[in-house]
Amino acid sequence: MDVKKTALDILSVALKAADPYHCIKKYVRIEHGSIVIDGITYPSVEYPKVMVVGAGKASARMAQALEDVLGDRINGGWINTKDDHAVPVQYIHVHECGHPVPDERGLTGARHIREILTEADDHTLVIGLLSGGGSALMPAPVDGITLKEKQDITSLLLKSGAAINELNAIRKHLSTLKGGGMARLAYPARLHMLILSDVIGDKLDVIASGPGVSDSSTFQDCLDICERYNIMDSLPENVKSRFIDGSQGKIPDTLKEGDTVVLSAVNSLIGNNRMSVEAARSYAGKLGYNTLVLSTMIEGEASDVGTVLSSVALEIMETGNPIKKPACVICGGETTVTIRGKGKGGRNQEMSLKVAQRLRGIENFMFLSAGTDGTDGPTDAAGGIVDGNTVLQGEEKGFDCYRFLDNNDSYHYLEAVDGLIKTGPTGTNVMDIQILLVGRP
Amino acid sequence: MDVKKTALDILSVALKAADPYHCIKKYVRIEHGSIVIDGITYPSVEYPKVMVVGAGKASARMAQALEDVLGDRINGGWINTKDDHAVPVQYIHVHECGHPVPDERGLTGARHIREILTEADDHTLVIGLLSGGGSALMPAPVDGITLKEKQDITSLLLKSGAAINELNAIRKHLSTLKGGGMARLAYPARLHMLILSDVIGDKLDVIASGPGVSDSSTFQDCLDICERYNIMDSLPENVKSRFIDGSQGKIPDTLKEGDTVVLSAVNSLIGNNRMSVEAARSYAGKLGYNTLVLSTMIEGEASDVGTVLSSVALEIMETGNPIKKPACVICGGETTVTIRGKGKGGRNQEMSLKVAQRLRGIENFMFLSAGTDGTDGPTDAAGGIVDGNTVLQGEEKGFDCYRFLDNNDSYHYLEAVDGLIKTGPTGTNVMDIQILLVGRP
Repeated sequence: MDVKKTALDILSVALKAADPYHCIKKYVRIEHGSIVIDGITYPSVEYPKVMVVGAGKASARMAQALEDVLGDRINGGWINTKDDHAVPVQYIHVHECGHPVPDERGLTGARHIREILTEADDHTLVIGLLSGGGSALMPAPVDGITLKEKQDITSLLLKSGAAINELNAIRKHLSTLKGGGMARLAYPARLHMLILSDVIGDKLDVIASGPGVSDSSTFQDCLDICERYNIMDSLPENVKSRFIDGSQGKIPDTLKEGDTVVLSAVNSLIGNNRMSVEAARSYAGKLGYNTLVLSTMIEGEASDVGTVLSSVALEIMETGNPIKKPACVICGGETTVTIRGKGKGGRNQEMSLKVAQRLRGIENFMFLSAGTDGTDGPTDAAGGIVDGNTVLQGEEKGFDCYRFLDNNDSYHYLEAVDGLIKTGPTGTNVMDIQILLVGRP
Repeated sequence: MDVKKTALDILSVALKAADPYHCIKKYVRIEHGSIVIDGITYPSVEYPKVMVVGAGKASARMAQALEDVLGDRINGGWINTKDDHAVPVQYIHVHECGHPVPDERGLTGARHIREILTEADDHTLVIGLLSGGGSALMPAPVDGITLKEKQDITSLLLKSGAAINELNAIRKHLSTLKGGGMARLAYPARLHMLILSDVIGDKLDVIASGPGVSDSSTFQDCLDICERYNIMDSLPENVKSRFIDGSQGKIPDTLKEGDTVVLSAVNSLIGNNRMSVEAARSYAGKLGYNTLVLSTMIEGEASDVGTVLSSVALEIMETGNPIKKPACVICGGETTVTIRGKGKGGRNQEMSLKVAQRLRGIENFMFLSAGTDGTDGPTDAAGGIVDGNTVLQGEEKGFDCYRFLDNNDSYHYLEAVDGLIKTGPTGTNVMDIQILLVGRP
């Protein structure tokens, strides 16, 4: 059997497990007339009205699946998604907005979502559909503060070197939907969030800025952060006074643990990198591979991660550690690339080429790395797939692997040696997946 | 039981397994009056004379152990070692020389070694003792070429961006001992090399530049390399003509596979990173840990390797992949650090601090990374040992972990939080070892 095809088949299984449509169908069903979500039953007598809200790159497709399951039980709803990510739906309004930079359309959509949440009463079940990009796609600055002001503060903090959790604290305190805002607005309606995670660790207060969960940061933290980065004097007056008023208890803080609202909102993770990796592992096991999941939280410089995975491959070949041949090692997460050159590529392609370089000429392995959303960097490829011949083939064409790596030009190298993976947009995003095969079953 | 002590105990076991003294004693013995090395018997009637030669940072201590085993069966010998690495010996001469830059003392010592090899006849058993640093410690340029000329070409190539294997090809073709030279000079005496590996992959033609094994590079390669990097015109005339004569077959090339000399020389690897890692794993298993050897060929940027190992730790905690708690994950190899700051540290300390930063506040793990030679970068520490409290402790002292990492100042951070490992010089070098403990038995 063709090992390259095997590796790509295993990847397909992983992608299918992350398909928003598949995930929704796995977690939502109708049983004896009641809606059942992730094991919780919502009888129609108690919740005669069902509304759907949400935002994210995969949320339109989630809405489509939800309609397939619940049909006319859905009374309406609104989803903000990214341009070109809309899909046909019947009961829910799907609205395309700017991403990654929020725009007016996002604001308009967020207003509609707020209206739905505000109108929902205790006989309404609100189903929230969150996925990656949800934060930028659902901009909802508090009254009196413009989107522009919010963005200015964010870029000011970014330039000052603020950490991502500090940025998030500020954002949440300037938003009506983030930091538990959706849960608060929905109350006393019942809110059940269905979440597709695109972040390492699947932290619910991070995905789409945590609209359905409590937030541990406070107004006082916001003041501290602004002081730490010396931007107090650059803050617009209304923002500054909001932070001060908030720290003095004059304005309610973001949703806090223990609040009745928190207790009434349910958040279900229905898809993440780990579920995809486990599906891939299970399939590889059926094919006869010894399988090992290294981690689903891989971060770091893509090429260095590639170097480490090459080291693992070599060890498998030489000693059968950490797992014996035929071996399938799977991991996932999201790496980064420090741009040094002017080439074309992405983190998955760069990692793959690095593995190819380090395992040049070595037989009996196959390695791939791919973004589950079907895109990798600014390219039309999802990632790269390589073996011991990859660099030998490149050399025959006069390609110097080191130079392509130095120039961050993995795309053109892999393109020339049939090493690109092209899936097209998958409609989901649960970060990246790596599959390493050593030996054959 | 104190987990920190447990981790350090496991490290001690690894270090002991790499101790040159221990390694020699494991591979050399006298049986019924015959010398037995790595399973090969050398009867005294056949080999009445035993000479010992070698070079490397651990080679003096290897010589000492050899004397302990063979005593007056040794008729003499010469070892080049690094300054302050000499130990008391009785039959073998131990000679200290410059390292990492070769010097006159190295040249003198290499001449003595050449004499011993040249004089050895077919009734002589020559035992070679090689370890890391052996190449620089045993400079033996061919007649008519000075050490200075050899060094100039090397630095010229380094500046031109030549790869390490290209440098090695050039070096071997300008040396009488490298690239199988020792084996050739020793012939028809029997040569048995005992080798402690300090390189990834344990390639015998790389350790100490492969004095006892064949070499695949040729004089023609040397010409190609010099042309590739445009240094032909900068070569001294004698070097240039040597390469040209060699490529035309007028001078014998380095030792090639299939040569009678190669067949008569035996090379035994008596210590390497893998043996140390396996010893550590076996000990951890006895302590009740589930053990996993990830790889003994880890390379890459130290902090990124730390990030990957943190990802593995988190996965163990959350899902029991790649191994269930109580888990002991061990790996080894040699990472690198891209210097960005002006602080003090080493690759092991930097990796440890990165793990500490990423696993800040997380309970129930311990991580260490240490150089088996007892030194890590230009510091008096062998490496670092950290847990979830490391960064919390640092914060109490007002230390910003990110800034210390950015400044490559892991030493001062770890020093302040009792996170340094200090073993003192161990007398060996089988690269670095990482030990990750999650949970307790």
